[in-house]
Amino acid sequence: MVTIALDAMGGDHAPASEIDGAVQAARSYGVRVLLVGRQEVLRPELARRNGAAGLPIEILHASEVVTMEDNAARAVRSKRDSSIRVAARLVRDGLAHGVVSAGNTGAVMATAKMIQGMVPGVERPALASVLPTRKGTPLVLIDVGANVDCTPRMLAQFAVMGEVYSRVILKTERPRIGLLSIGTEEQKGNEATRAALGLLRSLPLNFVGNVEGRDVYSGDVDVIVCDGFVGNAILKASEGLAELVKQMLRETLSATLTRRFGYLIARSAFADFKKRVDYSETGGAPLLGVRGVCIICHGSSNANAIKNAIRIAAEFARSQANRQIEDELSRWGQAPLAAKPL
Amino acid sequence: MVTIALDAMGGDHAPASEIDGAVQAARSYGVRVLLVGRQEVLRPELARRNGAAGLPIEILHASEVVTMEDNAARAVRSKRDSSIRVAARLVRDGLAHGVVSAGNTGAVMATAKMIQGMVPGVERPALASVLPTRKGTPLVLIDVGANVDCTPRMLAQFAVMGEVYSRVILKTERPRIGLLSIGTEEQKGNEATRAALGLLRSLPLNFVGNVEGRDVYSGDVDVIVCDGFVGNAILKASEGLAELVKQMLRETLSATLTRRFGYLIARSAFADFKKRVDYSETGGAPLLGVRGVCIICHGSSNANAIKNAIRIAAEFARSQANRQIEDELSRWGQAPLAAKPL
Repeated sequence: MVTIALDAMGGDHAPASEIDGAVQAARSYGVRVLLVGRQEVLRPELARRNGAAGLPIEILHASEVVTMEDNAARAVRSKRDSSIRVAARLVRDGLAHGVVSAGNTGAVMATAKMIQGMVPGVERPALASVLPTRKGTPLVLIDVGANVDCTPRMLAQFAVMGEVYSRVILKTERPRIGLLSIGTEEQKGNEATRAALGLLRSLPLNFVGNVEGRDVYSGDVDVIVCDGFVGNAILKASEGLAELVKQMLRETLSATLTRRFGYLIARSAFADFKKRVDYSETGGAPLLGVRGVCIICHGSSNANAIKNAIRIAAEFARSQANRQIEDELSRWGQAPLAAKPL
Repeated sequence: MVTIALDAMGGDHAPASEIDGAVQAARSYGVRVLLVGRQEVLRPELARRNGAAGLPIEILHASEVVTMEDNAARAVRSKRDSSIRVAARLVRDGLAHGVVSAGNTGAVMATAKMIQGMVPGVERPALASVLPTRKGTPLVLIDVGANVDCTPRMLAQFAVMGEVYSRVILKTERPRIGLLSIGTEEQKGNEATRAALGLLRSLPLNFVGNVEGRDVYSGDVDVIVCDGFVGNAILKASEGLAELVKQMLRETLSATLTRRFGYLIARSAFADFKKRVDYSETGGAPLLGVRGVCIICHGSSNANAIKNAIRIAAEFARSQANRQIEDELSRWGQAPLAAKPL
């Protein structure tokens, strides 16, 4: 049975959301969940859940908690018995297949990298985000913040990892890969993207060349590769714009009585809409390239988001996605290309 | 009277939108407009407009047109009698105060830089974009695509130019300036932003430090400074997301009969909403740092967008914004800071 270590203390609503999500996942997906955190908090909380007793859920004690306010690097060094670190250690020691956490993103990334270690051939793990598109297909944006000042070689590795995720987890056939730039022409871009273009062309990927910011939501490609600084800016600006749109629509729809009536009717439609763009359905952001798997959820994750993250983590482990990443990268390593310093 | 040279052949709907916009601007704002383009096309078109005869609008012949498909650099070199080049020459020769064009953005930027030249002290002109925020205040995002691989010094100059634009044109008192990064803490960011942070702190600006992508739409700052690669990605991803949202709402609101009824009532609200996020109200993107002024409109600009761009160009000229940019930069140039190689 696939076993996922869940950092039960990480999120803003921890441990309630985490425990509810674990119960739902264990019930629905046949996954064994190890709840990691303060046992004196977790034990009574878990006992209160109906029917939880019969499920494959266990509690593993960790005495410390990394908070959202903690400096990531410092917390990783100093809090050696934190729930996220103990969870990562379970993967390292072969006791769990992967980790899910809604905690401090920087701390989770640093811990996973240090404790779980990396898939052979991967230079740097990258954080991916799955976004909705106009064609209804999911888009993998990679990297969204794990690495800045990326080299062309790192960008090419992100493409390999993103392709495997899109194919294996999102079931995209022959994913189309684009390199984010400021125009589709070859000469457009910055130093790193211009150098990455040739490298990406040489890989056995369905690479379509440069794409623009607009293509994040167009559905014309399945994976977009970019520096983590740029991906993070796109992702957070998108969250900000979504909030602005929501606010403007609400204001505009309550301006008159007739409109308020329209709004009442339209409300169920908005609920649908919200569900379609709801991050909690996509199951968090996978940190690709680490051993096992590490899914990082939004701090404000509800039980549904945690449940879906556990589902994705289990699928990732079952499908041996890391083996595929390793194979792709090692095949690349044997190509004449690798002889050149990149 | 302020005189604006309008590239009448540039946009997707040229010259109809351009001529209508010129007529409206000349009528409403007391601006003299020089329509630049093929006189055999422009003369009969202008003659068809009611009441245009009495307005301060003149036609200046230019025999060539740079198309959207033209390679920008090549077009600038080879089409020496293009409407955009003739328009820029009018500014250079003191016959117009500024240029407005809805043509090929790359070609307009290159032409303005080469022909109009730069404000003393400016290293690189930067393209700014004005965006709506949740607090109703406008946000200046600079640079959105004129420069990639920006140095810390360039980012600091963008801050100076963006501050003047926000204060003088958008009437923001003491604009709050943020540096786009991937976290608000000092150590967050890439090499360029970390180096720019100290530089920005040393300037006499209301600098608030690092901000995140989310702040593009939060209204918590008035100017956000970033590399043109990043700004372009944010801007285009935002356009893509806006289209996705529009499509999703339409689909969701026409799913059932009751909802269609709700949609009918909500339709006028959507029209309001559209107007609030309509780029044509903000008057295009100013290329800051060139002599005179150059406002670049969206290729699909309608008459209203052209009219507003002419209004902004005239305000820019009247307020002597460039003089303020020059003064700020020269004051900076005299500070001990400038002695250090940046």
